[in-house]
Amino acid sequence: MSNERTELEQLGEFGLIKHLTQYFKINHKSTVKSIGDDAAILSVDDHEQLLVTTDMLVEGVHFDLMYTPLKHLGYKAVVVNLSDVYAMNATPKQITVSIAVSNRFSLEAIEELYSGIQKACEWYDIDLVGGDTTSSKSGLVISITAIGVASPEKIATRAGARLHDLIVVSGDLGGAYMGLQVLEREKEVFRSVNEAQPDLSGYDYILERQLKPEARKDIVELLDQLDVKPTSMIDISDGLASELYHIADQSFVGCDIYEEKIPVSPETIAAAKEFNLDYTTAALNGGEDYELLFTIKQKDLEKIQGNPHFSIIGHVTEEASGCRLITRAGEPITLKAQGWNAFRNEI
Amino acid sequence: MSNERTELEQLGEFGLIKHLTQYFKINHKSTVKSIGDDAAILSVDDHEQLLVTTDMLVEGVHFDLMYTPLKHLGYKAVVVNLSDVYAMNATPKQITVSIAVSNRFSLEAIEELYSGIQKACEWYDIDLVGGDTTSSKSGLVISITAIGVASPEKIATRAGARLHDLIVVSGDLGGAYMGLQVLEREKEVFRSVNEAQPDLSGYDYILERQLKPEARKDIVELLDQLDVKPTSMIDISDGLASELYHIADQSFVGCDIYEEKIPVSPETIAAAKEFNLDYTTAALNGGEDYELLFTIKQKDLEKIQGNPHFSIIGHVTEEASGCRLITRAGEPITLKAQGWNAFRNEI
Repeated sequence: MSNERTELEQLGEFGLIKHLTQYFKINHKSTVKSIGDDAAILSVDDHEQLLVTTDMLVEGVHFDLMYTPLKHLGYKAVVVNLSDVYAMNATPKQITVSIAVSNRFSLEAIEELYSGIQKACEWYDIDLVGGDTTSSKSGLVISITAIGVASPEKIATRAGARLHDLIVVSGDLGGAYMGLQVLEREKEVFRSVNEAQPDLSGYDYILERQLKPEARKDIVELLDQLDVKPTSMIDISDGLASELYHIADQSFVGCDIYEEKIPVSPETIAAAKEFNLDYTTAALNGGEDYELLFTIKQKDLEKIQGNPHFSIIGHVTEEASGCRLITRAGEPITLKAQGWNAFRNEI
Repeated sequence: MSNERTELEQLGEFGLIKHLTQYFKINHKSTVKSIGDDAAILSVDDHEQLLVTTDMLVEGVHFDLMYTPLKHLGYKAVVVNLSDVYAMNATPKQITVSIAVSNRFSLEAIEELYSGIQKACEWYDIDLVGGDTTSSKSGLVISITAIGVASPEKIATRAGARLHDLIVVSGDLGGAYMGLQVLEREKEVFRSVNEAQPDLSGYDYILERQLKPEARKDIVELLDQLDVKPTSMIDISDGLASELYHIADQSFVGCDIYEEKIPVSPETIAAAKEFNLDYTTAALNGGEDYELLFTIKQKDLEKIQGNPHFSIIGHVTEEASGCRLITRAGEPITLKAQGWNAFRNEI
């Protein structure tokens, strides 16, 4: 080891993975795609490919047990992994779950966590096939791997967006981030005022977006019914801006999105106003919405248009134009991908 | 949640997994075998099945960075997962690696860890296909999932041992445990005597068994060459006694093993003597040797007999006889499965 010291936060999560894995070689024909998309693609036979994705959730980094019920946490831990499989336009089938847990947790607490995992498995029709449980010196760590299937011609990566494709997003954005703001505020109130009860009434929608998000299984099914094959797709875990850059980078394109087209719920707008935050910023950089962001060919426009599940927010441009937000005033500004960085941002 | 509190250590690792997953249902035909073996089995097509296994290593529980070089740790973290795939008589092909790491680690330190991971990938011909890196509030956590393949008729589970089968073990046992004793002793010396240099000379073999174990890829290949299909198989991660019980439980059989037949290296015997420990106990309960324990049909005896890689240590008996050790004095004693319990035993 050299004597130099580089801090991990200088690279950020994506830079770090890229840096650490740059000298790894792929030897097996069955590895169709390795690191760099929502899930790895493994070939099985001619009519089916496997998708593999993994995520680790760490107490104090990804969740705060002061306001996260363990059952919700178990549910969410599964959902964030499934979301990565759906983001490949594929169907998750199996998961493994590993947990490290300190002795401060009782069996009953871990049962709560697993009841949430089970609920997610039932809802999304997933088999739990393996895992590991071990002790931890401090916090709770949950590591889940999800395995899915799809036919090779159905799979949508981040690399297939083409000039003039339309950019579409499911559901609405920014809610999970505003839910987090409410929870953090009430935690501070609870800390400073002895035994104050948190006041969470009226925030149901955004709290649910934060604490119990859903993966968009329904969207993948709907696209199939509509006979729309996305040219590229990604799930929105780190914020719309960051995900747009992933698609742009891997497809060698640029993109223009229109501020007025970004779907934001009335509840999110109200909460942003209350917190003196710009709701477009919440939608662009908030993350954790687990909606799907995808591109479609122009010819598929009429299949998507007018469907309340979808918002067409922009189109794919030349690589040289970069990723731009066209403001309500009609002004194009270059997007900043302030994606969530686990080495910088902590709860 | 009820108000009762049950401590996790009351159940132990295997009891805990069993308890937590008892109400999970398996819905997909493609899930051939879920929790309860070295790896889950997923069906792909008629001539191939997938094996999936996952393991989590936690600082202060599974490893101590005071005496574990990060490069060795990366190597070992991969090896312990591959070992679970080989233990199904299968060939691992891909892994995902997730790490949680605190800011006290520099990039250079994590590069060391990944150089060990890469070395293992090269040696065992494995593609790294995905993963996650995140920060941690305290220690280092490594979670790896390994994926392998085998034809359905080749796969050996824990459930296939039959009456009169022979019990075979590869390599030798107890070395990793004695290596750990040496490392723990030198750590104490280092702590109590200021700046004392650890004296590790002369312990090369057992230290390597502990710090840089290998998975027995060669044994799986050798069995194939010898045309021996094990009737059951498991890797020895928690100690011979504990693994024998897994095979006995799942195959509904008993087993007799002979103390004098258990393979123990001269280095392990010498170290055990020095520490005033019984080397048979180290072999039975030490764990972390990552050798393969398997059963074969009597008719395969001559293919195995005399091969220096294998020791025939006993035979399968009726379920009612339980698992017994026949001592050097010829006395049968019931084995105790004091497998390593991550909730009780910590470094």
